[in-house]
Amino acid sequence: MSGYPSLSVPPEGEFFRSRWVDPPDGIEFLDQAELPAGFRAGGVACGLKGGGATDLGAVICDAPEVASAILLTANAAAAAPVRVCRENLRQDVIRAAIVNSGNANAATGEQGVRDALAMRDALASEVGLEPETVAVAETGVIGVPMDMDAVLSGIAGLVASAEARGGVAFSEAIMTTDKWPKRVALRAGGVTLSAQAKGAGMIEPGFATMLCFVQTDALVADPARELRRAVGGSFERITVDGQMSTNDTVLLQASGASGRELPEGLLDAVLLQLALEVVSDGEGASRVGRVEVTGAADGAEAELVARKIANSPLVKTALLGRDPNWGRIAQAAGQALAGADIGELGPDAIEAADIAEGEREAELALRLDRGEASAHVFFSDLTHEYIVINAEYTT
Amino acid sequence: MSGYPSLSVPPEGEFFRSRWVDPPDGIEFLDQAELPAGFRAGGVACGLKGGGATDLGAVICDAPEVASAILLTANAAAAAPVRVCRENLRQDVIRAAIVNSGNANAATGEQGVRDALAMRDALASEVGLEPETVAVAETGVIGVPMDMDAVLSGIAGLVASAEARGGVAFSEAIMTTDKWPKRVALRAGGVTLSAQAKGAGMIEPGFATMLCFVQTDALVADPARELRRAVGGSFERITVDGQMSTNDTVLLQASGASGRELPEGLLDAVLLQLALEVVSDGEGASRVGRVEVTGAADGAEAELVARKIANSPLVKTALLGRDPNWGRIAQAAGQALAGADIGELGPDAIEAADIAEGEREAELALRLDRGEASAHVFFSDLTHEYIVINAEYTT
Repeated sequence: MSGYPSLSVPPEGEFFRSRWVDPPDGIEFLDQAELPAGFRAGGVACGLKGGGATDLGAVICDAPEVASAILLTANAAAAAPVRVCRENLRQDVIRAAIVNSGNANAATGEQGVRDALAMRDALASEVGLEPETVAVAETGVIGVPMDMDAVLSGIAGLVASAEARGGVAFSEAIMTTDKWPKRVALRAGGVTLSAQAKGAGMIEPGFATMLCFVQTDALVADPARELRRAVGGSFERITVDGQMSTNDTVLLQASGASGRELPEGLLDAVLLQLALEVVSDGEGASRVGRVEVTGAADGAEAELVARKIANSPLVKTALLGRDPNWGRIAQAAGQALAGADIGELGPDAIEAADIAEGEREAELALRLDRGEASAHVFFSDLTHEYIVINAEYTT
Repeated sequence: MSGYPSLSVPPEGEFFRSRWVDPPDGIEFLDQAELPAGFRAGGVACGLKGGGATDLGAVICDAPEVASAILLTANAAAAAPVRVCRENLRQDVIRAAIVNSGNANAATGEQGVRDALAMRDALASEVGLEPETVAVAETGVIGVPMDMDAVLSGIAGLVASAEARGGVAFSEAIMTTDKWPKRVALRAGGVTLSAQAKGAGMIEPGFATMLCFVQTDALVADPARELRRAVGGSFERITVDGQMSTNDTVLLQASGASGRELPEGLLDAVLLQLALEVVSDGEGASRVGRVEVTGAADGAEAELVARKIANSPLVKTALLGRDPNWGRIAQAAGQALAGADIGELGPDAIEAADIAEGEREAELALRLDRGEASAHVFFSDLTHEYIVINAEYTT
């Protein structure tokens, strides 16, 4: 079996099972290609990326019943596929998703919307589905017109490639600057669940972030509620560069074929693990930090302070430099609460342990004295590689 | 004469007269050491920095009358000297300021406040002033107790060093990671004006930023109003890393000795020039951008969008890479307005000219279609040097 030895070791061994993930007992890892009963997926190279890299993927549910939920970016300049999903998708019965990883189809005007609809319609026609049950997701360069000849020429081959063991091909077809594919296939409590995600840059969720696709044969009575809760504890808690993407999409599809319910905590653990992999594979990232703010006046304040710390370039470079620099944490917290009097934030209020060389995860904690609310955020460090990628790569 | 050849060329020739500064006519530049009538200043090495670098400075007004105004950071975790100035300073009759550039005296608890008061009292006693007319400003490392033996041992020599031609010594004594001293001495409309500033990191104003001291022999009837307006168009419009310092202070002192009023626009031009020098000498900065947002629903929205663009690491690295990457501008604007519908932001809405190699200033413009409000922000690029400075230097 080539599956994960744990929930969090990617194939390349770049990351380890995160200490911050607490999965339910009794998980059996499957070969990563496997999908739950009723699903097929695939990926092909249609030519958007060039060089023969796969760039067009699809996941399809053929089971008699499907329950689904989708979360889309809150970015006001949302990309065409997000607009199509917001306005023209039956979000509770999504049978298929089509994804390209060569062009974000963002800031492409009305033509972009027409192109996203054409991509959706072509897949629906090839599979034999109602177009309103097909989701579209796109990622890649912003502001460049779609090469629709390439996309449309790839659809027939894409559907032909889709198979029950298509998890690996699909997870690779949705990558952009990711260093490794983020995916898992597992069985627990009598149900099967697989998921594929991609991340890298422009990572700070409004309520979701990047692309993530989850398939299960469990019965899920209220997929929207399940997905929102799990995303709230995972993708909503991460930041790479504080930049909310125009294309973020998370899709959950449940075929119900197992006749059983999801074990409690499983979806949360899987999405948190994938979210942490997205942070740890953030553009240029070498280390992941977790900042916890307690004693805030209310939840919004705790969130604001935690995010201000997590997105501070001074804190992010301190994380790179293994410098438990609590002065910078105090500064960021004071900025978040500008105008308020929070007294002196000294060493007593801040915990930042020494970071060993080679340590991939670090914890920071800030204790305010204003109330009972708390929040935490996971974040990557800011490195030279981030600058190389973003000063030279056009997105 | 060793003065600036123009309002903006620092001694090292690193920056040029900014295209964005429009000073009044008839400015005569003076030797940079000169101060207006009634002022003296100086700087000494008291040992906070080590290596013999000057680290303690003072500026003193001996004229019979003084009018003054001071602006202090809004950071809720404000440093001890800021707390002392907020609570114990007669802000309209500030006769002197004492500054150290070796220790920010921030996050140092009640002992920090006692130390700031002791520093103030020692200068007041040595000069013969009421303590409540002496401002204290400090900059440097955060969270480290003050070495008060060093500071107090330096006071007598500091006051002895203060002289009418002390502008150069004072401007150098307040530097931290600045590459060049920011200062000007000029005559216009029959009045003399000198100013000294320091910047570098943790630069994003709440209403003021970093340290800046302005002396004039003009009559200034309402110095608080004058200073607030000039700061609103200068230090309030810049960002290096989006991080509001714990120590920001801007002080204006007017002796009235010339018997004449300040020429209209002079204070604004001087502070804008110094603010642009602070950005262009921001940690690691190689280029300054100006982003203008028009067509916003109201001023707050215009400001929010402009700051989100100016602080985006993707926009800042694009500025480094000379990439007029309007997709990143659209993304940042959409994030600032998350949840709103702003339609498609395409090439028509965004202007970002090509940036020539060696070009030190670049302009971006975003046109929304939501109202009549506008705002602009100046910002530095994000470079490898920023990371080197902040991953290795403890602040």
